[in-house]
Amino acid sequence: MTTAHSLPPFSNRLPANGLVHIDLGERAYDIHISGQAFTTPKFWQGLPAAATAMVVTNTTIAPLYLQQLTNAIEPHYTRVLSVVLPDGETYKNWQHLQTIFDALLTHQADRKTVLFALGGGVVGDMTGFAAATYMRGVPFVQVPTTLLSQVDSSVGGKTGVNHPLGKNMVGAFYQPVRVVCDLQALQTLPVREMSAGLAEVIKYGPIADMAFFDWLEANMSELRAGNAELLSLAVQRSCEIKSWVVAQDEREAGVRAILNFGHTFGHAIEAGMGYGAWLHGEAVGCGMVMAAHLSHRLGLVNQAYVDRLSALIAAAGLPTSGPVLTNSRGDASADIYLGHMRVDKKAEGGQVKFVLVNSAGQASLAAAEDGVVREVLGATCEV
Amino acid sequence: MTTAHSLPPFSNRLPANGLVHIDLGERAYDIHISGQAFTTPKFWQGLPAAATAMVVTNTTIAPLYLQQLTNAIEPHYTRVLSVVLPDGETYKNWQHLQTIFDALLTHQADRKTVLFALGGGVVGDMTGFAAATYMRGVPFVQVPTTLLSQVDSSVGGKTGVNHPLGKNMVGAFYQPVRVVCDLQALQTLPVREMSAGLAEVIKYGPIADMAFFDWLEANMSELRAGNAELLSLAVQRSCEIKSWVVAQDEREAGVRAILNFGHTFGHAIEAGMGYGAWLHGEAVGCGMVMAAHLSHRLGLVNQAYVDRLSALIAAAGLPTSGPVLTNSRGDASADIYLGHMRVDKKAEGGQVKFVLVNSAGQASLAAAEDGVVREVLGATCEV
Repeated sequence: MTTAHSLPPFSNRLPANGLVHIDLGERAYDIHISGQAFTTPKFWQGLPAAATAMVVTNTTIAPLYLQQLTNAIEPHYTRVLSVVLPDGETYKNWQHLQTIFDALLTHQADRKTVLFALGGGVVGDMTGFAAATYMRGVPFVQVPTTLLSQVDSSVGGKTGVNHPLGKNMVGAFYQPVRVVCDLQALQTLPVREMSAGLAEVIKYGPIADMAFFDWLEANMSELRAGNAELLSLAVQRSCEIKSWVVAQDEREAGVRAILNFGHTFGHAIEAGMGYGAWLHGEAVGCGMVMAAHLSHRLGLVNQAYVDRLSALIAAAGLPTSGPVLTNSRGDASADIYLGHMRVDKKAEGGQVKFVLVNSAGQASLAAAEDGVVREVLGATCEV
Repeated sequence: MTTAHSLPPFSNRLPANGLVHIDLGERAYDIHISGQAFTTPKFWQGLPAAATAMVVTNTTIAPLYLQQLTNAIEPHYTRVLSVVLPDGETYKNWQHLQTIFDALLTHQADRKTVLFALGGGVVGDMTGFAAATYMRGVPFVQVPTTLLSQVDSSVGGKTGVNHPLGKNMVGAFYQPVRVVCDLQALQTLPVREMSAGLAEVIKYGPIADMAFFDWLEANMSELRAGNAELLSLAVQRSCEIKSWVVAQDEREAGVRAILNFGHTFGHAIEAGMGYGAWLHGEAVGCGMVMAAHLSHRLGLVNQAYVDRLSALIAAAGLPTSGPVLTNSRGDASADIYLGHMRVDKKAEGGQVKFVLVNSAGQASLAAAEDGVVREVLGATCEV
């Protein structure tokens, strides 16, 4: 693993400064984190000039924030259009992407049109992919309203839709021109989604920053309760770590895979239970416990580390034991897990790779024998 | 217009060397032009390593060249899959793009899979877009089998599909890792398509190279008849000029627009007649006559130039006068032309721009008054 830039050290000083610069050369952009995002004019100034802006959002978020965002950006465009999608991962498909293109073309939106993604990961991924491909690319701004999207999906340029045969199978790497995170929006987040978002926050400790891990342990109950000042710091540090990783590997050819800590197990849970039964963050939370067990069995961390990470994940309100998977053929649960891992898109050339961590807060990527994975599943799944 | 690299001077020496390097930094690639492309092993060596290759082609090309291409690439992959699409622009849509994704996912093709586009512009654009978006990007190789795609659509990285409300409205800029042009394939090209391809060849003279214009005048009947040695030079010079333009402006923010010489008028003809009634090259051929008239009216070229370009376009077997357009509202033909130009995606902010040429072989982009455009249409359309 080579690091182009070193990660700045963690500072627990409050308030956080609310700005993260994503260094991707000509695709560089800024993330602004604020409790008054919609009423702070400077966050909406200096975007690419255009006659038309279009806000893409969903039926849950539109009544809460569409008017606020429209008011914020209206001074800069001749017209602000909007598209309201149904809410949910089920609708992250080509058919609903098409409604964005239909609206753009019906209104004769030109190739300078700026798209705004107002919502969680589904809205961000779909709007980003629409921006990547409408007339071969128009600018877009991420306005993530969930913790998960603020700390993960809005950073790094992954966009796309699901295919009936797999999640995120059709998409593009395409960077936004800006990200604006409104912390106020987290106050309307259901508690289960808050916990799911915290899973991705926790992730950044084990893979990159044990000081942040310590801070999360000390502050988890306040974070879970929605303390805006602490959340501001958690979002900022998460974005700093993610951007540090992404800057080294924009197109996920190598080191970026460490961001998938817990995800190989997590994806198997999501697929095995049927997408939507577990939230992505819940599956990742549990997956991190499994990956910590695997790291322990491979000699990278001790049992105390595994217990500590498991306790933090439990404190975030996340599951720490995996479900027993079943299928119509009556296969054993571990076989079903392994089967889902093999079709996961990270299984290049058929070999399943796992992100492992050590006690110094560093991650690595390695294959593991099926036998060891079975042991981990035996130790971490409900019976 | 700034030129990062100067265009190498035209050489009419035969045989052409058959190699054009496209200088796009980390996205650089080579174009190989050969009469024995499928039986020349070196053209298929050194591509990205992968377990799986997938050839995308159509029902017309598959019986002619699919086996030849499969034989050529088989030594380098564990398996070579293929997808055969129906032939025609009508099928350049999401539904048929989906058949490519379906095939890739059904065969569990991983993110290193290399796609090969075997066919004309439709196959190239769709395969390129599938490659741009399958798992957020896999490598692809263009194997263009029509003159139009060899000299135009396979170079420059434009990929995409049509939308019911407009052509190429959904797509991406995405470069192939290599282009291999087989000149033998041009022998099976219908004569009307040969002429349509020659329209894009002719285009490169007025916008960039009057020496090439002279050479085309001297050799047009031989080119039209399929002389492989001359075609090799015409393809190579066309690719050199296109790549010289594209290298200056990969994402069509400025100078690249000069490649649309004749296209603003041409697209109006295509849209006005219903897509498919005129071949794209036929509409562009006629559109270049119109654009030359416009350049004359704006004082950039003399009448002799207009006559000379019109004669060359006629010699290529292309139409030189535009159709009278009609619609159900009974609008005047010129109004229908102007209406189509305004919805063309080049009409940013509502202003229609035209590529104009001067007698030195240089192009520029300018708006024109409706009145002048009407005069041009009056002078160049059938009555």
